[in-house]
Amino acid sequence: MNFASDNWAGAAKEIAASLQEHSDGFSPAYGASDLDQALERRFNDLFEKEVAVYFVGTGTAANSLALSSMNRPGGFVLCHREAHLIEDECGAPEFFTSGARMAPIDGEMGRMDPKLLLDGLKRFDPSFVHHGQPMAVSLTQSTESGSVYGIDQLNEIAEITHRYGLPLHMDGARFANAMVRLGVTPAEMTWKAGVDVVSFGATKNGCWCAEAIVFFDPQAAKQLPFIRKRAAQLFSKTRFIAAQLHAYLDDDLWIRLATHANAMAERLIEGIQLKTQIEMAWPCESNELFVTMPTQLAEQLEQAGAKFYPWPVPNWFNHEMKSGEGLYRLVTSFATSEADVDQFLDLLPK
Amino acid sequence: MNFASDNWAGAAKEIAASLQEHSDGFSPAYGASDLDQALERRFNDLFEKEVAVYFVGTGTAANSLALSSMNRPGGFVLCHREAHLIEDECGAPEFFTSGARMAPIDGEMGRMDPKLLLDGLKRFDPSFVHHGQPMAVSLTQSTESGSVYGIDQLNEIAEITHRYGLPLHMDGARFANAMVRLGVTPAEMTWKAGVDVVSFGATKNGCWCAEAIVFFDPQAAKQLPFIRKRAAQLFSKTRFIAAQLHAYLDDDLWIRLATHANAMAERLIEGIQLKTQIEMAWPCESNELFVTMPTQLAEQLEQAGAKFYPWPVPNWFNHEMKSGEGLYRLVTSFATSEADVDQFLDLLPK
Amino acid sequence: MNFASDNWAGAAKEIAASLQEHSDGFSPAYGASDLDQALERRFNDLFEKEVAVYFVGTGTAANSLALSSMNRPGGFVLCHREAHLIEDECGAPEFFTSGARMAPIDGEMGRMDPKLLLDGLKRFDPSFVHHGQPMAVSLTQSTESGSVYGIDQLNEIAEITHRYGLPLHMDGARFANAMVRLGVTPAEMTWKAGVDVVSFGATKNGCWCAEAIVFFDPQAAKQLPFIRKRAAQLFSKTRFIAAQLHAYLDDDLWIRLATHANAMAERLIEGIQLKTQIEMAWPCESNELFVTMPTQLAEQLEQAGAKFYPWPVPNWFNHEMKSGEGLYRLVTSFATSEADVDQFLDLLPK
Amino acid sequence: MNFASDNWAGAAKEIAASLQEHSDGFSPAYGASDLDQALERRFNDLFEKEVAVYFVGTGTAANSLALSSMNRPGGFVLCHREAHLIEDECGAPEFFTSGARMAPIDGEMGRMDPKLLLDGLKRFDPSFVHHGQPMAVSLTQSTESGSVYGIDQLNEIAEITHRYGLPLHMDGARFANAMVRLGVTPAEMTWKAGVDVVSFGATKNGCWCAEAIVFFDPQAAKQLPFIRKRAAQLFSKTRFIAAQLHAYLDDDLWIRLATHANAMAERLIEGIQLKTQIEMAWPCESNELFVTMPTQLAEQLEQAGAKFYPWPVPNWFNHEMKSGEGLYRLVTSFATSEADVDQFLDLLPK
Repeated sequence: MNFASDNWAGAAKEIAASLQEHSDGFSPAYGASDLDQALERRFNDLFEKEVAVYFVGTGTAANSLALSSMNRPGGFVLCHREAHLIEDECGAPEFFTSGARMAPIDGEMGRMDPKLLLDGLKRFDPSFVHHGQPMAVSLTQSTESGSVYGIDQLNEIAEITHRYGLPLHMDGARFANAMVRLGVTPAEMTWKAGVDVVSFGATKNGCWCAEAIVFFDPQAAKQLPFIRKRAAQLFSKTRFIAAQLHAYLDDDLWIRLATHANAMAERLIEGIQLKTQIEMAWPCESNELFVTMPTQLAEQLEQAGAKFYPWPVPNWFNHEMKSGEGLYRLVTSFATSEADVDQFLDLLPK
Repeated sequence: MNFASDNWAGAAKEIAASLQEHSDGFSPAYGASDLDQALERRFNDLFEKEVAVYFVGTGTAANSLALSSMNRPGGFVLCHREAHLIEDECGAPEFFTSGARMAPIDGEMGRMDPKLLLDGLKRFDPSFVHHGQPMAVSLTQSTESGSVYGIDQLNEIAEITHRYGLPLHMDGARFANAMVRLGVTPAEMTWKAGVDVVSFGATKNGCWCAEAIVFFDPQAAKQLPFIRKRAAQLFSKTRFIAAQLHAYLDDDLWIRLATHANAMAERLIEGIQLKTQIEMAWPCESNELFVTMPTQLAEQLEQAGAKFYPWPVPNWFNHEMKSGEGLYRLVTSFATSEADVDQFLDLLPK
Repeated sequence: MNFASDNWAGAAKEIAASLQEHSDGFSPAYGASDLDQALERRFNDLFEKEVAVYFVGTGTAANSLALSSMNRPGGFVLCHREAHLIEDECGAPEFFTSGARMAPIDGEMGRMDPKLLLDGLKRFDPSFVHHGQPMAVSLTQSTESGSVYGIDQLNEIAEITHRYGLPLHMDGARFANAMVRLGVTPAEMTWKAGVDVVSFGATKNGCWCAEAIVFFDPQAAKQLPFIRKRAAQLFSKTRFIAAQLHAYLDDDLWIRLATHANAMAERLIEGIQLKTQIEMAWPCESNELFVTMPTQLAEQLEQAGAKFYPWPVPNWFNHEMKSGEGLYRLVTSFATSEADVDQFLDLLPK
Repeated sequence: MNFASDNWAGAAKEIAASLQEHSDGFSPAYGASDLDQALERRFNDLFEKEVAVYFVGTGTAANSLALSSMNRPGGFVLCHREAHLIEDECGAPEFFTSGARMAPIDGEMGRMDPKLLLDGLKRFDPSFVHHGQPMAVSLTQSTESGSVYGIDQLNEIAEITHRYGLPLHMDGARFANAMVRLGVTPAEMTWKAGVDVVSFGATKNGCWCAEAIVFFDPQAAKQLPFIRKRAAQLFSKTRFIAAQLHAYLDDDLWIRLATHANAMAERLIEGIQLKTQIEMAWPCESNELFVTMPTQLAEQLEQAGAKFYPWPVPNWFNHEMKSGEGLYRLVTSFATSEADVDQFLDLLPK
């Protein structure tokens, strides 16, 4: 009954098998092997476009290096107030950009409010250096609140971003969960909707450590090879990342894993809706559920072996928390079983 | 017949099996699992001392973050002219230290000359800010030239370093090969010889990607958790590194792998010494051999399927290169087979 | 009738005369002259304590280098939402700290609310690296809103800051105006009230460009000589800063200049209080006044030659702005004359 | 008898008078005043071309920010081994570029050897990230050894630099002395000879603190306003720099000052050539002389009140230093008088 985080799971068995399979023999290091290069080409097919793709080891690296490629002195990255960039990366985006700022934009359900994004951009006067300058907009898909930007919403954010001459970055740590939810293609959820660069996450969805930075304008990525190496993110035995990602993409494994994770979230939701002491705090659109329940119940669940985290109440959450009640996050993943879900539901009082 | 680099090998079969074994189930992320924490304790035993250890994904990261923890404004790191820090990390040490300099110290066989190190340190006058200030000394064990610092040599470097109040860092990308050569313990080759921090490399010796930064004074590492996270080197599924390193240390696997690599180097050397057109450029003390041979012979070997790299002639190499002759590097590893070595030797003319 | 900013004034005549006087002859560069060193000693007397003092050219440099000396990886500096550090330095504090964040703390009248500061500090759990860590608290005296922290308020902020083991920095761009207002000594407004480092500003109060970073614990400043030189803030002809500051301190010139600036603000306030269409937005405690008036009146004043700036409405300003009304800032300085003030007041309708 | 450095002088009397003159009254801060803007236009005339010019406070800032505008990840700046960038800026160029390296190029008389520069550039293979990449070439005019690049030599360096697609920076801390020596115009010594950006120094030649970064392609300077502000080099009362530089350029004051400095150097040389115990180490082409003499004589001169520095022997200086002999630097400036020179010469034994 582990709903702590999708990164508490290990690796999907196909990923593990691929690593095993590629562990023998010699092949060129630093991205030069056939396996590495075939993977790069495979991303062109995946996104139906010639892309520039760079593999790194962590989501923080993918985000930080993507932003580093867009860097401007005194730069600001506008992103949701709860974005991973702001809350969970210990200043890595600032460090890799030599001091850019992450500017929080509010919005319900973890999605930036386009009007507030526009206000955030309007405050910069290009001739007034004291305030600094905007350098990028970054959105998270799916969001930190388990919601998903619809295609229209992506288009709207992109239109505003491009109106100010800025690139749009997507933090896709849970790319697959959002895509499956929307029922669209990788291309439709990214460049066709105006996204310029995506951190394509695979770690949370079944890999050990495999993230790709995908640039839809390869020209914009020209310095990335040096940015990545300087960031200590060019692994020597790159084939261990390539082996993970080939297996990840083979036979749509990644889509099947995310479909499963989302289905397990659905199963949880359906069960929760039949219960009286726990309720969905807001709609779940991917594999992260947020629920309210008495803190006493939460403790009982934990004692019974369920793992999940209490969560800070977002500033846009207007529900009045009752005394003794808490907000909690439950995350499902490729590794969540129906039995786990059902065992958890059984622990909940009617 | 692959002697291109020890990072052209994949993973040792025990490492691959350990990853397979630990891929199932849930465990806390970001270094908090039992497996992670048992590994940290295991390093205390390994080094016979309470150490602070931090795991990262690349050797460049290990080196750069170790130096980052020693950082001083306007700082200089004194290291051998051919050090990986200087030659092969695309400015990562400079980047992670916000601009420290790598100051080249000359010395034969890839080892810093203690007298020149002392001269390098003497030039800094603490009251003269214009030149900057020394912040650390870093040596590579085994060196980029395949040599090994003896214990006395380590002590001498350490004594000079500490005389100037500086920490001594060891780039141990090939730690095991050097240790096996010297026939000493990990403690004897590090803190007992005056080393303060070591980049303990495991990738080249059979792991996929597993490097440890080991501080012999845990107080000096207090900021490392933040330094590592900010550097995007805190993996979420840390157990994939832990699984590699547990297997690496189990039953002295790491020593057996390095012993094999060194033995394969010995076998190559013995064979080469019987040949007339190829000769050892200088003595090999670990798993990197440097040979001189006619470029035409090198081409023939390559056409016959042997992989190895031509190498720039070091400034301390006094051998007069004959016309048509080149310097080449051959690297053996855990994955080198006797058959590979013999096949290579058979290709060499008498 | 220039109330645009205190940095629109030039230099006080005593400062200009001192520069003239010291322009001849030779003296050691880079802070080594007798004049430079006498000035350093003079700061001990000024603050009644042995201090470490470093002279730089801009207030942004003073603030940024002070913070740089307190730097921690993933660090946060807590300061008021409207602090110069946040609003007006184009990312310099972030740049010089290689990516520290400026965390906004709210509070009325431009002063941090101690309770909110405490909340801001409580959110950091030292064992949770993802959020980063606090590294300093910075307050501005007098504030960006023209208010002044009383000694008790300074003590309260300092107590909270030190409870978390952090240093307290004071941005004293308008140090003299606040001190004159409080009627205290430099020591009383700084270290005796718990301030650890102050950016002692002199530029706005009559110098051309002269700012001092004063450390009350000289040990904490040990790296500053290198930090300053690396920041390109060690001038070669340092005596031009020393010449300014000697004149600034001679015969309490600095106190006289600030007293004059504050008195001119008082004179403005008194006049404004007799008028009907303009009113003080909130009390002025130093040399910056904030007024509300019809935008049409503001335009008329500008056309008549008055210089001042419209100002963004702070989030703590609860006054309901009437339609057609704006918020404006008026700044007085050593260079403001009674005639200027009276001429401005005469332009205001009864 | 002060020949320690040209920055031991104060300010030329015309500069001091200009500061005095402009110290009254109000004018817009941060470069927006009429005086500031007239100065910017004046640089177009000075260089016979539309340029982008940014004023800063120190030569280190001018150099570092110029390089910052050319920055590339893993970047190298190729410059002479004795360049101020390498020897005297405490890592500022590295810091402001977030870790670029200064790569030493050897060459006689303080001038880069074009062949060695070419070799330095050739070692970078654009597809090999490990070594990093070149980002700029920087030369010093006049050099740290008192020599001057002739126009042909500048053209040769520029041709090589541009062949590799790199910008050429000139550190012109002693721009005027070189220009006067060559008898050319500012345009001829810069963009007409292939220089892309110059640090136009005025401090050493009679200002207090006034340096200009001049870009001959204004497009290349687009980020400079933000780079400068973020670097804490945008002064609030910019007119104090403008006042210095207007006076500096008025009636060719700067040329007269440099002509005087060079003439004083000539006078010294002529006198020295008549003496037996002291001799020119190498030819002087501007206002820095390097001499050899017995250390005992040097001590006697110092005791008699002469100021000058001993100097490290350059690696290209093939003169065999006799036992008891030292190398010394003598610098003349706008403030050096004939009487000073003659008094010094009189102290020298026949």
